Amino acid sequence: MKSRNIYLSSLKLEEAKDVYFNSIQLDHLVSNEVISVESSLNRITSEPVYAKLSSPHYNASAMDGVMVIAEKTYGADERHAIILRADDFVYVDTGDVIREPYNAVIMIEDIQVVEEGIEIIEAAAPWQHIRPIGEDIVQTEMILPAGHKIRPVDLGALLAGGIFTISVVKKPSVGILPTGTEIVEPKEHLIPGEIIDSNSRMFEALILEMGGSPTRYPSLKDDYDLLKAHIKSMSETHDIILINAGSSAGSEDYTVMIIRELGEVIVHGVAIKPGKPAILGIINNKPVIGIPGYPVSAYFVFDIYVKTLMDLWFNKIAAKRHTVKALLSKRLMSSIKHEEYIRMKLGLVSNKLVAIPLNRGAGVTMSLVKADGICVVPQNIEGYEAGTEVTIELLKDIGQIEQTLVSIGSHDIIMDLIGDNIKKASLSSTHVGSMGGIMAIMKHETHIAPIHLLDETTGIYNKSFVKKYLKDDVVLVEGIKRIQGLYVQKGNPKNITSIKDLIKEDITFVNRQKGAGTRLLLDYQLKVNDIDSSKITGYKREMMTHMTVASAVKSGTADVGMGIESVAKIMDLEFIPIGEEDYDFVVLKSILNTKMYQSFLEVIQSDVFNKKISDMGGYRIEHIGEILTVE
Amino acid sequence: MKSRNIYLSSLKLEEAKDVYFNSIQLDHLVSNEVISVESSLNRITSEPVYAKLSSPHYNASAMDGVMVIAEKTYGADERHAIILRADDFVYVDTGDVIREPYNAVIMIEDIQVVEEGIEIIEAAAPWQHIRPIGEDIVQTEMILPAGHKIRPVDLGALLAGGIFTISVVKKPSVGILPTGTEIVEPKEHLIPGEIIDSNSRMFEALILEMGGSPTRYPSLKDDYDLLKAHIKSMSETHDIILINAGSSAGSEDYTVMIIRELGEVIVHGVAIKPGKPAILGIINNKPVIGIPGYPVSAYFVFDIYVKTLMDLWFNKIAAKRHTVKALLSKRLMSSIKHEEYIRMKLGLVSNKLVAIPLNRGAGVTMSLVKADGICVVPQNIEGYEAGTEVTIELLKDIGQIEQTLVSIGSHDIIMDLIGDNIKKASLSSTHVGSMGGIMAIMKHETHIAPIHLLDETTGIYNKSFVKKYLKDDVVLVEGIKRIQGLYVQKGNPKNITSIKDLIKEDITFVNRQKGAGTRLLLDYQLKVNDIDSSKITGYKREMMTHMTVASAVKSGTADVGMGIESVAKIMDLEFIPIGEEDYDFVVLKSILNTKMYQSFLEVIQSDVFNKKISDMGGYRIEHIGEILTVE
Repeated sequence: MKSRNIYLSSLKLEEAKDVYFNSIQLDHLVSNEVISVESSLNRITSEPVYAKLSSPHYNASAMDGVMVIAEKTYGADERHAIILRADDFVYVDTGDVIREPYNAVIMIEDIQVVEEGIEIIEAAAPWQHIRPIGEDIVQTEMILPAGHKIRPVDLGALLAGGIFTISVVKKPSVGILPTGTEIVEPKEHLIPGEIIDSNSRMFEALILEMGGSPTRYPSLKDDYDLLKAHIKSMSETHDIILINAGSSAGSEDYTVMIIRELGEVIVHGVAIKPGKPAILGIINNKPVIGIPGYPVSAYFVFDIYVKTLMDLWFNKIAAKRHTVKALLSKRLMSSIKHEEYIRMKLGLVSNKLVAIPLNRGAGVTMSLVKADGICVVPQNIEGYEAGTEVTIELLKDIGQIEQTLVSIGSHDIIMDLIGDNIKKASLSSTHVGSMGGIMAIMKHETHIAPIHLLDETTGIYNKSFVKKYLKDDVVLVEGIKRIQGLYVQKGNPKNITSIKDLIKEDITFVNRQKGAGTRLLLDYQLKVNDIDSSKITGYKREMMTHMTVASAVKSGTADVGMGIESVAKIMDLEFIPIGEEDYDFVVLKSILNTKMYQSFLEVIQSDVFNKKISDMGGYRIEHIGEILTVE
Repeated sequence: MKSRNIYLSSLKLEEAKDVYFNSIQLDHLVSNEVISVESSLNRITSEPVYAKLSSPHYNASAMDGVMVIAEKTYGADERHAIILRADDFVYVDTGDVIREPYNAVIMIEDIQVVEEGIEIIEAAAPWQHIRPIGEDIVQTEMILPAGHKIRPVDLGALLAGGIFTISVVKKPSVGILPTGTEIVEPKEHLIPGEIIDSNSRMFEALILEMGGSPTRYPSLKDDYDLLKAHIKSMSETHDIILINAGSSAGSEDYTVMIIRELGEVIVHGVAIKPGKPAILGIINNKPVIGIPGYPVSAYFVFDIYVKTLMDLWFNKIAAKRHTVKALLSKRLMSSIKHEEYIRMKLGLVSNKLVAIPLNRGAGVTMSLVKADGICVVPQNIEGYEAGTEVTIELLKDIGQIEQTLVSIGSHDIIMDLIGDNIKKASLSSTHVGSMGGIMAIMKHETHIAPIHLLDETTGIYNKSFVKKYLKDDVVLVEGIKRIQGLYVQKGNPKNITSIKDLIKEDITFVNRQKGAGTRLLLDYQLKVNDIDSSKITGYKREMMTHMTVASAVKSGTADVGMGIESVAKIMDLEFIPIGEEDYDFVVLKSILNTKMYQSFLEVIQSDVFNKKISDMGGYRIEHIGEILTVE
């Protein structure tokens, strides 16, 4: 058995940052360069910039009109017009030079052209409508301080102030090294165990966004000497070194040993989640950061340490994410051992901002892609109850979030289709099953809740559930009819033909979570067929969507699962139909006349949608979009 | 006299946008292109992207440990350890393939190595610590919707989902044409009337930021046929055409006539300020926007129309600026005829966010550079009283604003020097004169107020004013001693030697605003010398800073002005000393122990600062930073 270093320290985040960033001496690494102002967008000033030229650099007319000698206009009023002749006035446009002896401008609207010249009925005050030299920028005035990120408007001010070259902080050269024998370059056909190197591309993009100059190396296999030689050489050529993976306590985790051998490990392991196994080290006086392999952990380690490092490099005050207050849609448990970063969806429902936690797995990249914001749960806090007001750091624009139609409930791929076709609004779908949707809309945490709930006593879908659980602040809107059935592998190798086959000994099932309409349908079918669920192998293995059930069957970890026909087609599985069900929408009455709901309605009632649905198969449309009578 | 079109329409902003954007057909202009995912950062998806590969694409260990057959672990507990031998377990690292017949992983921490194999004291549940195929991304799942701006984290998800090329919206080709005979390329030596073309560089940078592909043309002189030919040719080669200047009602404003001749003017003039004279037109089915020449007007016209156009191009939901609520530091008047955009400084003082209006001139670029945010005053609103809570659209990061030491009061160039040397905080200086500073700190709108106020009865600076106006929530901190005197042109052409010369007939004076310490000093000197201020030509012409007074003298619009010696040196003027004064800081007691104030103190008491001050001349330091006794 190979040697392992199982235990990581668990420093608090603030301690870890203090210890590490106090150990790093950046002064000898950071240098400046002089570049042209025109190419300086987004660069960081290394010193304050003082204007070399006043703006305007001459006394300029601020209006279109005539320049006059103010003293010659004195006494003019409505009853005593004054006529200015010949040299007493000169036409000027905005920006024209005011030359002596002229010392005021009268607007073109306020003069009357007469034969002898112009007539005015109001005196001009000296210097009126004149932009004096330096009104905007006075020569020698500070235009920008040091440590300032140059924006488009700054470019304008710099050029107007006669600054054509500027001293900026040199971009740090950041070396990015993916490691791991299993890591491969992007390619079409992967064999089991191979993982596409996606992290290092994310790092490269993040470094670019932060103003650095990234160099990405091809992935290195887990070979101690090879890794050591490569890291040593990187510490000679780069200012900052990032090593991906190899930072947890696994057998192939040489990173920490190599950093220790070549330099110093300052921190290994921080009490945050995701992102615990980060390594903060120094080699050759240069910061070396070991970043965990899971994409979400990697993102947070990057966001916390690498971003701070880059801010220090540029002598910038750290930017803070914008935050909003939102009400937690459900209880959020958190480990008291860690500061935890939880990805959240947000929605503006009934004038409250609602925050819905997303999947918390460190491997679940899609939770980051989908997230609208992050809820940071501090160490020593066990979590928050549902309904608590929490602070969310925004990852997306609040304007977009406010124009998002929130859907929480049962999953169907038509929700993706609608989301893609909706205009002037966006659709955010969270899949928690039909009963989860009922609960969410009851608490006004969602605008709409897609459900498919079979009333066992009447055989009618949805209506009785809306009547039983919800008040008259909602309506039930007809959605689509869809075929439910069993997914089996191509060729149906286990020869499954009906629900009754689920109890056969050699058959493994995969189920949906409690509260899912599909699970209710299964349970109803088991009851009708008098089948004991405890006899079904895999009845307790729960998946959250049709897709994941189909995926389990496809990959062979289960022989059969239940779900909708359209997904079987997409995933190329065989399908044994069981029956048709109603997939409808519970909708908050208050949103019926909003742009976002009208936009949703427009999509589901469009010919394009109708055609796509029928192309997919497994669906039928009757009166989609119509409000159903629940009584 | 040349023909002029004086009157502009004054459509409301929303009407103008509706009319214009409904007239534009972008569909035939917008097209898509397929690029590699690795080069797609910040591009906009043209269609939804569905995963081609599941992630993980095989059942993967989620931990370092051993893979086992769950059923063989059943019955293990603290009292009944089970020993797994030979083929009953296999060591795995995180990410390793779980192959049949194994169906669970036990963490390395939970096993004990024994001679026969490994010992466990807890049963494993089937599929524990295994990431099933598609846990993160299921093949065919939507990774990104259409109209999405690709972020670093999206790159990671796309590659993990087996997507290596992606269809994005082609960047619009944007032609930028500066016009005006007075507009010149950046150069060192300008003659009066010449204006450096800074706007078109700002536009270029803004278009880049918005994801377009800009082409900037050299400035064209005001020649109707030349302009017309050029604009016609641009409408053939570009998707969007921006024409700078020539959009007000001046004599050289051919833009509107040319657009009308070549195409259609949809809107000319909108009821916003700054930015009223915008032209929204169409030539050859392409959007043509005429942008006013004043930099601030140009910026807002860009921000309002060009940004909307770019969002429509990319089919994006318009991003909204983050907003904060802040208390208005002073009354804000606004024209009821316009929607007005007022640039604001912000500061967090005594836990309130305070908003201080900046200079409102459309020509004052520096007001945009310095602004932390924008206050939009709607049409038909006359303005707001001081103390009103207003909404501010943020232009800077709120985290930076919160770490900003706010100074409101008298102006001295040492404030720039301090601002540049302060670390871990930033300094925001607003110059309203000493009495303005007293008023601001009285209302807790600023952290510190630099003042130099002479008590005529005692000849002592500052103390009596602090005692008279302020409560015991402030302290007076010693600043610097500085020499005040008169600025005259090099060689002193008017032979001015003392205050008494100000009333001479051929001498024009330039004054400071009421409430400025320098003005009080002047008035004191006039009193002492028994001089009637009404006899001084220019006594009523007011400037806001020493710099602008010096600039007026330098440029010859005044013969003499009063100010501090250091500015005379910087501006290379002759200086006639009048006396030394105390420039001190009133400081809120509550901030004395904060990091930002300590940082300020560190700077003013440093050797570096001391040396720079004495190098500048005109200053003297005694007990800088010490708290003065006011009683």
